[in-house]
Amino acid sequence: MNDFVIPYQQLRQFAIDVFLKMDCPKYEANLAADVLLNADLRGIDSHGVARLSGYVRLWEAKRINSRPAISVVHETPSTAVVDGDQGLGLVVAPKAMEIAIEKAEKVGTGWVAVKNSNHFGIAGHHAMMALGHDMIGMAMTNASPLVAPTFSVERLLGTNPICVAIPAGKQPAFVADFATTTAANGKLEILQRKNQEAPEGWIQKKDGSVSTNANELKEGGALVPLGSDREHGSHKGFCLGAWVDIFSAVLSGANYGPWVPPFVSFLAPPADPVGDGIGHFFGAMRVDAFRPVDDFKKHMDTWITRFRSAKTVEGQDRLIIPGDPERESEKERMISGIPLNPKVAQDLKELGVKFNVEF
Amino acid sequence: MNDFVIPYQQLRQFAIDVFLKMDCPKYEANLAADVLLNADLRGIDSHGVARLSGYVRLWEAKRINSRPAISVVHETPSTAVVDGDQGLGLVVAPKAMEIAIEKAEKVGTGWVAVKNSNHFGIAGHHAMMALGHDMIGMAMTNASPLVAPTFSVERLLGTNPICVAIPAGKQPAFVADFATTTAANGKLEILQRKNQEAPEGWIQKKDGSVSTNANELKEGGALVPLGSDREHGSHKGFCLGAWVDIFSAVLSGANYGPWVPPFVSFLAPPADPVGDGIGHFFGAMRVDAFRPVDDFKKHMDTWITRFRSAKTVEGQDRLIIPGDPERESEKERMISGIPLNPKVAQDLKELGVKFNVEF
Repeated sequence: MNDFVIPYQQLRQFAIDVFLKMDCPKYEANLAADVLLNADLRGIDSHGVARLSGYVRLWEAKRINSRPAISVVHETPSTAVVDGDQGLGLVVAPKAMEIAIEKAEKVGTGWVAVKNSNHFGIAGHHAMMALGHDMIGMAMTNASPLVAPTFSVERLLGTNPICVAIPAGKQPAFVADFATTTAANGKLEILQRKNQEAPEGWIQKKDGSVSTNANELKEGGALVPLGSDREHGSHKGFCLGAWVDIFSAVLSGANYGPWVPPFVSFLAPPADPVGDGIGHFFGAMRVDAFRPVDDFKKHMDTWITRFRSAKTVEGQDRLIIPGDPERESEKERMISGIPLNPKVAQDLKELGVKFNVEF
Repeated sequence: MNDFVIPYQQLRQFAIDVFLKMDCPKYEANLAADVLLNADLRGIDSHGVARLSGYVRLWEAKRINSRPAISVVHETPSTAVVDGDQGLGLVVAPKAMEIAIEKAEKVGTGWVAVKNSNHFGIAGHHAMMALGHDMIGMAMTNASPLVAPTFSVERLLGTNPICVAIPAGKQPAFVADFATTTAANGKLEILQRKNQEAPEGWIQKKDGSVSTNANELKEGGALVPLGSDREHGSHKGFCLGAWVDIFSAVLSGANYGPWVPPFVSFLAPPADPVGDGIGHFFGAMRVDAFRPVDDFKKHMDTWITRFRSAKTVEGQDRLIIPGDPERESEKERMISGIPLNPKVAQDLKELGVKFNVEF
């Protein structure tokens, strides 16, 4: 599958160069590249450089502003609403998270809703910004509608991910970063490239019946909420996706539900928007706003150690603590390079030719 | 199944009388009864009067303090940690939520972690306290370990519910209140009483293999996280349950994971506690800390109306908005009374005899 392996620094420089060609200021081009490459390092390939040409096309379609005036339009001591001015989500999101962290420094917690933004890469990047400040970080975003709520045949929600990042002491941080669907769209894309079927419970047909066709979304089908079906709790997955949508967009004044503009440039945004761009929601909570940092970290270490050492089912040698697989991927890929799917590599090559940037 | 139907006010008075016999002060006996009955009204029978004798037995075992000195032990402008002094969770939780609301009044949001508490009834009651203040409310709690995380054969987490309550305008509020497992333990108890099998994907055997035996937990089995198995995202359900556990207990100084004391009095709490009692976590966010209340409510109405009118799969006439079924149950049962399972009715009768209280 992965014929190409590119050293991290080389791929990062390429992304920076492309963002500079999109007329991003130097600092923002670097930041956007870091957020994007963080996804590739952490093994979430669907949210990394595989999306670079998508951002370019949105910029060409004048749906991304590469020099946004990101501003706070409303605030209280512990909250803010940020207008992303149609900027790259990769740049708007870290800025909003910084504001959440500043507010937490002052009053214990900070909560920032964002409107008028775009795809922000992986939620994990932004939530994890809190860790170095001995804070808990949270990040969520809505996204283009690909998901049919329980009993619906219409696609009304995005895969709406949530990340919660919690610092520990000697143990690595707890980082839960997940789409609120049974499977993320990136998992489907992998199956599509391999011409493989999807397990039952990931997708439904146009009429709502079960499908295993990884290309079902092209036929009017939909992803389903975490839980797969009503009997297995898909109404709870719907609750999660709806929660993310409302916090990200109804609180901020962005588009929500079926009105969220598509990431792909060949689909036009809805003609009757209910808000501005897509929405995100961020939170930062100072650990010492609740108890001394050392106490907290000692107990987080106990929590993680106890769970990691749980007795496992046959065939599995350990329980996976949220954040483990991504951290292991990051460590390995930083040294051995980023594997690229041939289609992604080809896409990046073409981008290099177009912008006269070395790939 | 339900041979007995008791008028709401009669059942409420009975619960008040029992709490008074437990030596609760009058105001707290009323409050505890209201929280408990709210579960019965909303159709969450497992968390209502069915648990009343359980609270009594914990009190008899001196594991519940009916006259607690509930106190704030640490705070910042937007946060607090509350020590419940081993009080009834039914009383400690509303007090903590009040503190969250007061903080939100002042700085936009309020976040309260609670230790040294007990079972708090339904999360929905506490989160919904925010609605009348034009705030978003959140409530979560950890609970006795009944759930095996993905790949584990050990029970390390409770069913750890989350509630998010969001006000709307002309539409009723959005209230998502759900256990972070595929099925709540109460659903299993219903099957046990009916001698029915559980669907695959709700529970696992002692060795981690799939079970449909609704009594499997008595054989060392476990409930599984939302998602059922790894292929269907149970690692995400585990993330949710872990998040609730850490916010409720590691932030507050309560017991977490397998150290959470059991609700049933015949099981002793762990001999090596890592904290005090069980833990909860509450949040309140003023809507106008983000945008004008009227704007927000107008858009919530649009959100709810759009989702409620979605095209549905054959055989279902509408998409269920979180909170719809509970509100409908509340409306109906307030008028027609609370149906009681014969075993629950018998249990309450015995309680009445014991305390010389009319049932």
